Amino acid sequence: MIRLAIVGYGNLGRGVEAAVQQNKDMNLCAVFTRRDPSTLLLQTPNVPVLSMDALADWEDKLDALIICGGSATDLPVMTPMLARKFNVIDSFDNHGNIPVHYAAVDAAAREGDHIAVISVGWDPGLFSINRLYAGAVLPEGKDYTFWGKGVSQGHSDAVRRIPGVLDCRQYTIPVPEAMDAVRNGENPELTTRQKHTRHCYVVAEENADKAAIETAIKTMPNYFADYDTTVEFVTAEELKRDHSGLPHGGSVIRSGVTGWNGESRQTIEYKLTLDSNPQFTASVLVATARAAVKMYGRGERGCKTVLDIAPADLSSLSREEMLAHLL
Amino acid sequence: MIRLAIVGYGNLGRGVEAAVQQNKDMNLCAVFTRRDPSTLLLQTPNVPVLSMDALADWEDKLDALIICGGSATDLPVMTPMLARKFNVIDSFDNHGNIPVHYAAVDAAAREGDHIAVISVGWDPGLFSINRLYAGAVLPEGKDYTFWGKGVSQGHSDAVRRIPGVLDCRQYTIPVPEAMDAVRNGENPELTTRQKHTRHCYVVAEENADKAAIETAIKTMPNYFADYDTTVEFVTAEELKRDHSGLPHGGSVIRSGVTGWNGESRQTIEYKLTLDSNPQFTASVLVATARAAVKMYGRGERGCKTVLDIAPADLSSLSREEMLAHLL
Repeated sequence: MIRLAIVGYGNLGRGVEAAVQQNKDMNLCAVFTRRDPSTLLLQTPNVPVLSMDALADWEDKLDALIICGGSATDLPVMTPMLARKFNVIDSFDNHGNIPVHYAAVDAAAREGDHIAVISVGWDPGLFSINRLYAGAVLPEGKDYTFWGKGVSQGHSDAVRRIPGVLDCRQYTIPVPEAMDAVRNGENPELTTRQKHTRHCYVVAEENADKAAIETAIKTMPNYFADYDTTVEFVTAEELKRDHSGLPHGGSVIRSGVTGWNGESRQTIEYKLTLDSNPQFTASVLVATARAAVKMYGRGERGCKTVLDIAPADLSSLSREEMLAHLL
Repeated sequence: MIRLAIVGYGNLGRGVEAAVQQNKDMNLCAVFTRRDPSTLLLQTPNVPVLSMDALADWEDKLDALIICGGSATDLPVMTPMLARKFNVIDSFDNHGNIPVHYAAVDAAAREGDHIAVISVGWDPGLFSINRLYAGAVLPEGKDYTFWGKGVSQGHSDAVRRIPGVLDCRQYTIPVPEAMDAVRNGENPELTTRQKHTRHCYVVAEENADKAAIETAIKTMPNYFADYDTTVEFVTAEELKRDHSGLPHGGSVIRSGVTGWNGESRQTIEYKLTLDSNPQFTASVLVATARAAVKMYGRGERGCKTVLDIAPADLSSLSREEMLAHLL
């Protein structure tokens, strides 16, 4: 049995707990938290909730730690720190900072003689894998990533910081005409505005200046200014009733040509439709933990990404089962 | 530069030739054939066409051989034989016989201190990879493979063997309602008949008994009896004009649940839309040849499948480029 522990028990950590339960070859041994451990109630019976300080006693009792922290400030500190003592997996998703995070985690993991896998999930993660496969198979082509329809927590948070806003749920929506053009192999040049629209459900304070809020959202640089954004005011009850889930998804599509004269159009699409973004990310983390433990057992050390992991290492099936039933 | 050679110059071999041209890190060094070499005219200038006997002189001049033979009788003999002397890649696609082929190729490759990758293409191949990833990430779920719309060469050949038939092109077509039910996460139980239909364009001899031909097709065991099949008689000119390509494709879809109570539905779909089945298969073979050469360089030996290859090995990008742009 693979012995796992979770560090951080938010949406992602709870998703990891549920995913571990679905995999018969692994056990959840402990949850570590920066909060007061007595305030957390796990779903799994008989699993201890411990403070971060207690990790020092667990070095020989775990095969891997799944670190469920935020990419902005938690993971850049926690992943290198913990990779010195444990095999670790994280979901660092700040694309632009991946090379820096990789270097820090690689140095720490090698110093501690451990393996670490960073940026695990669906983007980065399964989408990255599909960008790689599609690009390797169709070198003369162009790929596109569309996100949604789904909730962007970063954009929802950005709206919540506007004065007069009590709550917000922001949906990212791919433009159907753009997706169709890509699927048809037209390889269009698409601006940011042409690829996605944004829809905000906003709960405003009583007497708030709704027109000012709408303007503040639509003109917000980086987050909304480059998109066609719709703002819809709703009550707190409506937001809770209709928008309390965290659905997401998207598609990676590559269209390219093959043949001596590029005469054949070939299109590859990888598409996710997710009721729960954090639970799905958690499921990828847990399968990747299995791979990390297998690779560690074969002597692999240092920082890896999903691109470095052979598919077979993610599976609990035997080689014989894979050859007979999966291939 | 990766030095490659092709064994067998049919549709697949010509596709490999075109794919090698698209990859700047590889050279086509020779084509080997069982036919009279003087009868073959390559697209690539200055590449020798040689008889199979000449292979003995090329042991130190090639990094890998791509074997473009048929799975019924060619590959079970050729792949083990050639794996004793070369690194080899094949597209063995007889799913039921993969374990036997694997064992024969593994023994030969290890005896010759080489690496071999078998069953490369899209099914087996990219579809297998996607079945594995999806199953590892969503252990509580069910997956479905749909093929088409596309030409099945095996079914076309079966019809051609019926007395009175001059030519045939058979299309395999997924049933839209079945695909919709799967995409909606209904996890239906589907019979063979409910998943695909078959459509045959048939050129008959003058004065042939068309009713008898239609009956012979529709009642043919294994190939057609379990399907709703449509038979359409066309002229040789119409067949050539409208059905001379080899398009294919399909989808691997897995729908599963996550969450402590399985409350979230998650769906993964991998979809191919291919103008040319053999050219696409060839493109996968060529990217896999790159991976085989990298793995051989790291000391890996014996028989592998696509499930054993880390995605990064398929790519010509550097580690830094992958981390910065692909992940």
